[in-house]
Amino acid sequence: MATQQLATWSVNLQYANLTAPVIAAAVTSLYNWAGCAIGGYQQPAPSLALNATFPHFGGAPTSSILALANDSTQTDAQIAAFVNGIAGHVDDYDDTHLATIIHPTGTVASALFAVAEWQGGVTGQEFVTAFVAGVEAELKLGLAVWPEHYDVGWHDTSTTGSIGAAVAVSKILGLDIPTTQQAIGIACTQVIGMQEFFGSDTKSFHIGRAAQGGMIGALLAQSGFTSSLQGLEAQFGWVHVVSTRENVTAEFDQLGEVWEILSNTFKPYPCGIVMHPSIQGAIEVQSAALGQGLRIQDITSVEARVNPETLVLTGQTDPETGLEGKFSVYHGIAVGLLFGQATPSQFTDSVVTNATVVALRKLVNVTTDSTINEDEAYVSAVFQDGTNVTQHIVHVIGSIDNPLNETQLKDKFMGQASLVLGEERAGKAYDAFMGIGNVSDVGLVVKMFSGVNGTNKIGLCTEEI
Amino acid sequence: MATQQLATWSVNLQYANLTAPVIAAAVTSLYNWAGCAIGGYQQPAPSLALNATFPHFGGAPTSSILALANDSTQTDAQIAAFVNGIAGHVDDYDDTHLATIIHPTGTVASALFAVAEWQGGVTGQEFVTAFVAGVEAELKLGLAVWPEHYDVGWHDTSTTGSIGAAVAVSKILGLDIPTTQQAIGIACTQVIGMQEFFGSDTKSFHIGRAAQGGMIGALLAQSGFTSSLQGLEAQFGWVHVVSTRENVTAEFDQLGEVWEILSNTFKPYPCGIVMHPSIQGAIEVQSAALGQGLRIQDITSVEARVNPETLVLTGQTDPETGLEGKFSVYHGIAVGLLFGQATPSQFTDSVVTNATVVALRKLVNVTTDSTINEDEAYVSAVFQDGTNVTQHIVHVIGSIDNPLNETQLKDKFMGQASLVLGEERAGKAYDAFMGIGNVSDVGLVVKMFSGVNGTNKIGLCTEEI
Repeated sequence: MATQQLATWSVNLQYANLTAPVIAAAVTSLYNWAGCAIGGYQQPAPSLALNATFPHFGGAPTSSILALANDSTQTDAQIAAFVNGIAGHVDDYDDTHLATIIHPTGTVASALFAVAEWQGGVTGQEFVTAFVAGVEAELKLGLAVWPEHYDVGWHDTSTTGSIGAAVAVSKILGLDIPTTQQAIGIACTQVIGMQEFFGSDTKSFHIGRAAQGGMIGALLAQSGFTSSLQGLEAQFGWVHVVSTRENVTAEFDQLGEVWEILSNTFKPYPCGIVMHPSIQGAIEVQSAALGQGLRIQDITSVEARVNPETLVLTGQTDPETGLEGKFSVYHGIAVGLLFGQATPSQFTDSVVTNATVVALRKLVNVTTDSTINEDEAYVSAVFQDGTNVTQHIVHVIGSIDNPLNETQLKDKFMGQASLVLGEERAGKAYDAFMGIGNVSDVGLVVKMFSGVNGTNKIGLCTEEI
Repeated sequence: MATQQLATWSVNLQYANLTAPVIAAAVTSLYNWAGCAIGGYQQPAPSLALNATFPHFGGAPTSSILALANDSTQTDAQIAAFVNGIAGHVDDYDDTHLATIIHPTGTVASALFAVAEWQGGVTGQEFVTAFVAGVEAELKLGLAVWPEHYDVGWHDTSTTGSIGAAVAVSKILGLDIPTTQQAIGIACTQVIGMQEFFGSDTKSFHIGRAAQGGMIGALLAQSGFTSSLQGLEAQFGWVHVVSTRENVTAEFDQLGEVWEILSNTFKPYPCGIVMHPSIQGAIEVQSAALGQGLRIQDITSVEARVNPETLVLTGQTDPETGLEGKFSVYHGIAVGLLFGQATPSQFTDSVVTNATVVALRKLVNVTTDSTINEDEAYVSAVFQDGTNVTQHIVHVIGSIDNPLNETQLKDKFMGQASLVLGEERAGKAYDAFMGIGNVSDVGLVVKMFSGVNGTNKIGLCTEEI
């Protein structure tokens, strides 16, 4: 029943069913993701993935690589979803549904945006509605198998994300309920993502590959390819194979009643979310110390007390690359103290291996305390003169109780996008994605900031078989 | 260590290390698969998959769809691997490593053949060596997690197959040991295939998608994409995430000592292997009954006693499609009794829904007995005059103790391929794949039977990025 229940809800969902806060959360999620997908292209992974696939496997140019909008580079929808999916997550700067640690937008938006551009004529309202359907699907599934599924080592962002992408793409393709069930089945049988790959290019590969997996599920189902009508709940289907616990029925009964997208949060720092309170603590210690005339180079020791999950996920003491630095609370604290900020510039290979950073990192000691919440931390620095500066972060910025405001979100977008597109086009891109819910054709969004009238159809001319 | 151990063994493996029986088993596995990949194209799934992807996502035409060799249809290597992978498995007629129920050739051969055609200049000896490396990798992994991994619902043919494909493609691309480890990691994090999808098009999708997953792993690793050097054995890597039991070290210690490919068997009937003894029993009952002047339409009841696994995997009592019929021991017995054979023609939608077949199927009763081996069955039919005809199959044809001989394997190949390519080209195809170990360039194999000098580069002209 679960697969049918999900498909029925999604197929019947209308824009009019979305509340104003749901629409606002969807639009914020989308433009926050777009900023990440543009800025993240500065990392190696997205262009490595493009260059390893596109020259050999690139098909009809229908869909944009967002970061390459300056020259309107398009490729086929599968590769666009893959590359944008990787770029949107590679900085670990996207968004987080805190109850599941799922970063929900990337998989669904990557697939959906590529298909919407390819298909043409998808309105902003249709797009937002399909996006919400996909996000609710993945988050309800994530809750249904939490935490057993995550604890065994799956990367739940992508394991649920392929199913969310299948739901969203099925909706935008206009598939009926049983065909949507078949699409969900094909997505179910592709389980992408394990935690071993955190800190490598493959973490963001998970998002791109899951987006492709959901997309291919919807396209195959549309063509009449069969899978199962109960891919989720069957004895040898998704839920039971990937988790020792499941509560799908209870979660799906809340579809449209409790909107998970309202619990989505946006990262202030481009790294594992569990180290964010420590980073903010370090930044505030720096500020307070400088205000007292202290010098960071005079620090003799640093102590942080954090929630235990912090060390489980970000306990790397000796990161050697920028990506590994994103999973080192020690590095996060060091750059917070040294730079007073933690932006993508603080998570490059060169900063992670910088001698000053490394030296300060080695002074950091982290202890865990299960009475400390996940959005909370204490950070203290002791200076040569014996002064101790301590900051207590009660609710870290970006948490559900202390969300980024619109100005901060715009600054985050511009800080990423302007480095890639230039200031002017980044501003237009912000406006375009902010307004995505109102456009008559989502395929026009990239044209609103690309600065090119036509598109640069890289590569190919295709005939039908 | 396991990932490094596997990569080291594979990179160092030379053709000279292969024993004559290993080479023979590899060549038999390859031509048996090729026959299936040609004949299986008559099912809907392969062309549905081609048509849902190729017109939109097809890239540079480098690699053949085997069944479309008559007009030398080529597409990019990813889609060729996908479609040949589906076609080679869709009839459930390929091969089986009995200790794991893995059908080992499809994933590895689909990926490897497509890449070999694309890259060019791969000799038959290099091809066979890489193929053996990939097959040994997937089968040792399958043994290492058997049976817990299978019992929870995974389709181990494809869950291990993506890793086997990554190993084989890495070898043919000449990747070094650490780069092969990275490729294995990317394959590890894509776990394709659950048993819920048996009896649908998605079962064979598993093979095509796993072939693509392994291929993309090798290509990304080649480009410098990072994953992990211990994707298999890490706490949150493949082995521990997908199984509650593992014995990878013990299995990998036997690499090159115990060759799993020597235990590969070839199916005499295009359906779930656990129903094969019952089918042969039914065929022999028919033969004996006709010899006694009895008429099949006078059967009043049929009893089969079988190993318990038979009903677990092929217990469908009321199949409605040809694919479902492949997982119904009841259907298998009915067609064995009625037709005296079980070829792809007995597993079509129309035969599965034929009134005479359905009526006889309803007379079949199956009981399980754990003292009966998996390659054994008793089948009895009672006729209107009270005569009881019983046959006991001790080792079913196609089992390790009663393998198909070369004539039977050639008949199997020709029976499939001639329907698609015509008799003459099918004969040339048989010769070409029989001789694959000796060619100077595997890319020439399809030209040896396609009857076209040039290739029909469907669709595309591509520029480099």
